[in-house]
Amino acid sequence: MIVALDHIAIAVPDLDKAIKRFLEDFGLEYSGTEDVESAKTSTAFFPLPETSIELVHPLNGEGPIAKYLEKKGGGMHHLCFRSDDLDADVVRLKEKGYQFLSEEPSIGAHNCRVIFIHPKSCDGVLIELNQPSEDGHH
Amino acid sequence: MIVALDHIAIAVPDLDKAIKRFLEDFGLEYSGTEDVESAKTSTAFFPLPETSIELVHPLNGEGPIAKYLEKKGGGMHHLCFRSDDLDADVVRLKEKGYQFLSEEPSIGAHNCRVIFIHPKSCDGVLIELNQPSEDGHH
Repeated sequence: MIVALDHIAIAVPDLDKAIKRFLEDFGLEYSGTEDVESAKTSTAFFPLPETSIELVHPLNGEGPIAKYLEKKGGGMHHLCFRSDDLDADVVRLKEKGYQFLSEEPSIGAHNCRVIFIHPKSCDGVLIELNQPSEDGHH
Repeated sequence: MIVALDHIAIAVPDLDKAIKRFLEDFGLEYSGTEDVESAKTSTAFFPLPETSIELVHPLNGEGPIAKYLEKKGGGMHHLCFRSDDLDADVVRLKEKGYQFLSEEPSIGAHNCRVIFIHPKSCDGVLIELNQPSEDGHH
């Protein structure tokens, strides 16, 4: 029986730089590295509290997911980090050189304010930041 | 401040079919759908308990991650579900028509037994199943 999502794996060209990003820039806890000889892979782990898988599909056949599916057929689309002060995090990450897909946040699922970091700022991973709305959802 | 990984998003060409996969085949809890008009996106959520981000990087410049990076430069590589009976889950999923990348599990990070489902069986997402070793790690 499947009992948990064990991990989400991200391929990175520079491990030290990526560890620094997830540790310092995104503020995750870091539990160390392990070389897996059998898989010829070096790994670094960041334990996370509860999260969700979100399936995303074009609404009425339109929009950004429709374009993604046309090109790729399907696949892992983005990670979303939750913020308790989205505007401050956007300023902080812009100062570190992160590029965003829009100037201002917009409204996403669960009525959250959301903004996306350009994948080229994160080794090809599209990263969303969101902040739950004041009505207490989430 | 970033306080959580809010979600992992997966783009899917057939939402009902994908909901059925994550609910029935992978046994996740399902909390419902939401249409996000502003993003022209239909979504479906599966809440998850704690997990990890795993950065993966070629060991000594070789192996499958090196090939992935050559092709894509970086990006979300796979999701891994933890099993409490890997052999039974492999049999169960093979019966449902899932194709695997190998006949038998091998040894991965944390000394787990691991096996990968072919991305073409999961809308382009590479999915690993693992089972912690008997020594109680994990």
